[in-house]
Amino acid sequence: MLDRIDHVALAVSDLDASLDHYREVWGLEVSHRERIPDEGIEEAMLPLGESFIQLIAPLEGGGTIGRYIERRGEGLHHIAYVVEDIGAALAGLKAKGARLIDEAPRPGGSGNLIAFVHPAGNRGVLVELIQRPA
Amino acid sequence: MLDRIDHVALAVSDLDASLDHYREVWGLEVSHRERIPDEGIEEAMLPLGESFIQLIAPLEGGGTIGRYIERRGEGLHHIAYVVEDIGAALAGLKAKGARLIDEAPRPGGSGNLIAFVHPAGNRGVLVELIQRPA
Repeated sequence: MLDRIDHVALAVSDLDASLDHYREVWGLEVSHRERIPDEGIEEAMLPLGESFIQLIAPLEGGGTIGRYIERRGEGLHHIAYVVEDIGAALAGLKAKGARLIDEAPRPGGSGNLIAFVHPAGNRGVLVELIQRPA
Repeated sequence: MLDRIDHVALAVSDLDASLDHYREVWGLEVSHRERIPDEGIEEAMLPLGESFIQLIAPLEGGGTIGRYIERRGEGLHHIAYVVEDIGAALAGLKAKGARLIDEAPRPGGSGNLIAFVHPAGNRGVLVELIQRPA
């Protein structure tokens, strides 16, 4: 069902400072950066092997990532898996009792279809499913 | 400096139940399982693409993972990167001001050399470096 890890998402309070940190300390460079005002975030993708490190920062106003950082601090936020058929994956997860945040796939960045699975019932891990454009 | 993601480590309270969960819900199978009494943990590796999902559970007595779960609950714990030369990587990180938990590489499972980097000074993310055996 799962193809590979698409990305590991890290919540950061300051995207520019964090991109400097990841370049200088870890040698990782940004390949894509995008503001998503609807979700109150700005994200950046840093390629590593077949996956990415994703940095997510709150836009002005906070949003869910701002509240997450207030409550838990900066750090690991979620893991995203590539699936071939996100509709089939969601139907399968629902049949197995997983708690879906998104009952149906929705458009993400870069032409992807995405859906989130709730950490409750998944051993505390927030999961994003991603279907790449054909 | 970094080759790829070796694994994403998830803290779980019950390894057997979690392996069942990952098999039934996510279709991931365990390839290696090991008790590490010195660290008070049992770990299991689930291959996915070029990386692994690692489940870590506390042995009787709790240890650092038991205390982590008490404080934060089950969930994402750390991220591990493959490096070619772990000695050079640690020296470089130290020169850049990273806070090393292990100043020198130490033996991990499967003949690997490993070292941990503290989340303080790394935007809240605990990192493990891994050099595979030659």
